[in-house]
Amino acid sequence: MSKLDAPTTGQQASAGRSSGSTSTNARKATTRTLQTVTDGEGQVTSRVRRTVLPGGLRVISEHMAGVRSASIGVWVGVGSREETPALHGCSHFLEHLLFKGTEERSALDISIALDAVGGEFNAFTAKEYTCFHARVLDEDLPLAVDVLGDMITSSRLDPADVEAERDVILDEIAMHDDDPDDVVHNLFAAQAWGDSPLGRPIAGTVESIAALTREQIHRFYRRHYRPATMVVAAAGNVDHAALVRQVRRSFGRQGWLDRAEAPVPPRHAARTRRVTPGTIEATRPFEQVNVVLGMEGVTRQDDRRFALGVLNTALGGGTSSRLFQEVREHRGLAYSVFSFASHHADSGLVGVSVGCLPSKLDDVLAVVRAELAKVAAEGITEEELGRGKGMLRGGLVLGLEDSGSRMSRIGKAELVYDELLSIDEVIARIDGVTLDDVRTIAAELFSRAEVLAIVGPR
Amino acid sequence: MSKLDAPTTGQQASAGRSSGSTSTNARKATTRTLQTVTDGEGQVTSRVRRTVLPGGLRVISEHMAGVRSASIGVWVGVGSREETPALHGCSHFLEHLLFKGTEERSALDISIALDAVGGEFNAFTAKEYTCFHARVLDEDLPLAVDVLGDMITSSRLDPADVEAERDVILDEIAMHDDDPDDVVHNLFAAQAWGDSPLGRPIAGTVESIAALTREQIHRFYRRHYRPATMVVAAAGNVDHAALVRQVRRSFGRQGWLDRAEAPVPPRHAARTRRVTPGTIEATRPFEQVNVVLGMEGVTRQDDRRFALGVLNTALGGGTSSRLFQEVREHRGLAYSVFSFASHHADSGLVGVSVGCLPSKLDDVLAVVRAELAKVAAEGITEEELGRGKGMLRGGLVLGLEDSGSRMSRIGKAELVYDELLSIDEVIARIDGVTLDDVRTIAAELFSRAEVLAIVGPR
Repeated sequence: MSKLDAPTTGQQASAGRSSGSTSTNARKATTRTLQTVTDGEGQVTSRVRRTVLPGGLRVISEHMAGVRSASIGVWVGVGSREETPALHGCSHFLEHLLFKGTEERSALDISIALDAVGGEFNAFTAKEYTCFHARVLDEDLPLAVDVLGDMITSSRLDPADVEAERDVILDEIAMHDDDPDDVVHNLFAAQAWGDSPLGRPIAGTVESIAALTREQIHRFYRRHYRPATMVVAAAGNVDHAALVRQVRRSFGRQGWLDRAEAPVPPRHAARTRRVTPGTIEATRPFEQVNVVLGMEGVTRQDDRRFALGVLNTALGGGTSSRLFQEVREHRGLAYSVFSFASHHADSGLVGVSVGCLPSKLDDVLAVVRAELAKVAAEGITEEELGRGKGMLRGGLVLGLEDSGSRMSRIGKAELVYDELLSIDEVIARIDGVTLDDVRTIAAELFSRAEVLAIVGPR
Repeated sequence: MSKLDAPTTGQQASAGRSSGSTSTNARKATTRTLQTVTDGEGQVTSRVRRTVLPGGLRVISEHMAGVRSASIGVWVGVGSREETPALHGCSHFLEHLLFKGTEERSALDISIALDAVGGEFNAFTAKEYTCFHARVLDEDLPLAVDVLGDMITSSRLDPADVEAERDVILDEIAMHDDDPDDVVHNLFAAQAWGDSPLGRPIAGTVESIAALTREQIHRFYRRHYRPATMVVAAAGNVDHAALVRQVRRSFGRQGWLDRAEAPVPPRHAARTRRVTPGTIEATRPFEQVNVVLGMEGVTRQDDRRFALGVLNTALGGGTSSRLFQEVREHRGLAYSVFSFASHHADSGLVGVSVGCLPSKLDDVLAVVRAELAKVAAEGITEEELGRGKGMLRGGLVLGLEDSGSRMSRIGKAELVYDELLSIDEVIARIDGVTLDDVRTIAAELFSRAEVLAIVGPR
């Protein structure tokens, strides 16, 4: 995972793609402007436009005034939660293999293309999507689009490459096993969701990776990497029409766009997936004990996510938060302590993550539980409400200067949300959160039964 | 350490502060413009100005057009290499304590001030400097300057806070001990520089932290945190004159600026500190073996750092590099492999960092040694030279959009380099590197005796 996939507290959101935005006419594309932002003098500082290409491929871009770079991402609506036990780790394995060569380019050619212009080029796999992304100077954007289109549509998945990459992934799994933070968060998900796609680690296991065949991965690629499951998102100094032309050329290889399909809408949950409370422990010879203590949270579509965002900030979002003050400042129990809220289509988690010396574990758990109980009983103060909103608002506005954050915002909204909220709308939703909203969600979530994951030497 | 302190490959550089830039007149400040950059239409897109305040405090700022945020850092010319064995870990301990409260503000007040406006606020300690930095909306810059000025000049170092923070640091040390990457790089430095300030870990040891007294830390604070050892650097939507006024107010508390001292110049090495070759191993129950294999490099002032930057890029700087291609792409031996070059006033290191499964260690070492020998014997190709330059140039230009990178560039240049090179000058130096320059430095460095650090389960 890269920083583009940091957990969201509710700022990610989205709107109104219902209106005539799909095309089943093989050669026709529909475009519309979703948002325009002007400054005090009426100058346009940002414009978001969206086009649906033949085959259902969506292209969404945000032009930013005064910027010389561009960020681009191809967001694919497939991740580890699509995987049966036999396919466990397949999405991530495939993400790796897409860098290994196409009909036109060797793996080295792909690397050279973006290295030569100093671009940042990477990918990550999550539970519900996979993203291939680059940041380049504006003049190099067509090159980045072409390399991405080539990889997405025409990767070879050469059997020899599959074998070499299998070893790389086994090493990556060993690396995650040496990272206490990865280990404890994987355990937490395993307890919360059990032996199900959401509960299993994204990278797979040594056994599942050893067993995957080239044929299984290739079938997975052909099945899930289709125009209708994808969004091409770009932000920065981007001309939307030129981008769309370039995407048509680069993704139109070998008739890849010639299909009669409409964009696959965001996954909607028929019902919420329940979380299983309980304690899960693993013994590892680490110096620290790492702990995640949490509960079932809310889904991505839940409007209460804005209140939860403010609550999360007041509870454990900054150095002025209750947890940081109680656990670290007043008692010196731990160096790192924070709370989080993560959202999926049909489930969500809230929790507290902390690492401490083994001798402090009981005190840490007691303090964290006491703080959760207190906020569940009393909510937060007026002052904390104001500060929490200021922190979310400030972070949001500061993030706007980064084309990668903007690209990620619009791409993810298009793929997994039902709407793209403008920044002003997001700020209005944050500002609209009341003390009562926070008290209500705190009382509901923090009175739920505990999911507790512990990794350490005892 | 934060991302602001990532290892540099030679892009960091600096110029010409010799001319009348110091003031020993207690109330007079001298200001000059160091650099102005204009765009194609003659509009000023960036301007760097520098002022020396009474007491020798330097203020340097870069105005960036079209940006609404500002990054600020206070760079203090003290780090772990100032520490005697009895003071080991003192710089970092002190960095923590500066967040614990002043005469005017409690620790909570300090946290609240910047959390409330959504600012990012942190600090890091390195071997030769300590930096306190923030990123805020432009309108909140005076607030950030005031909080920083208060912390730097008027921290209480309350005995009870020293005790609570001692526990936090012991936990931080345990966290580093659980990070294979931190462990292997600390070992590498220990082998290279032995039991000396440069060779010891920045955070100290359990024993040295347990032994430090409040009085020792307080003396260290009074001795090293002086106007003449510091640079206040800011970049973004910054008005230099307003910044200087604010710094005078905030750092002028209790007559702190009323001293007759000139800025302390960058540390200059009377002679280069030699590196001790050899192998150092530590057994830890990790899944992976982590290895750093390197040699003595060049100092920060060495003009060959630009050629070394290009060499480092071609050897192990991107996915098209020789090491990535040979170790990962062709043989699947490791997930992560890269080369680095780090620079200090009187010493430097070059090397290769890699993590792999224990069964692959011998192969990894053989491939890395073969690649180093090859580049030492033959240099790099014309194509690699062009690509390496493109990658450095592109990365440099892409970094310019981030106010944090710009702040870091000018602040570090002022503190530890003799000159501030303009971006155009840096690019000219990179472009000026020849095949011969690269071959010469490769032959010299990679024929030196090996420093090898290995951490793993065997």
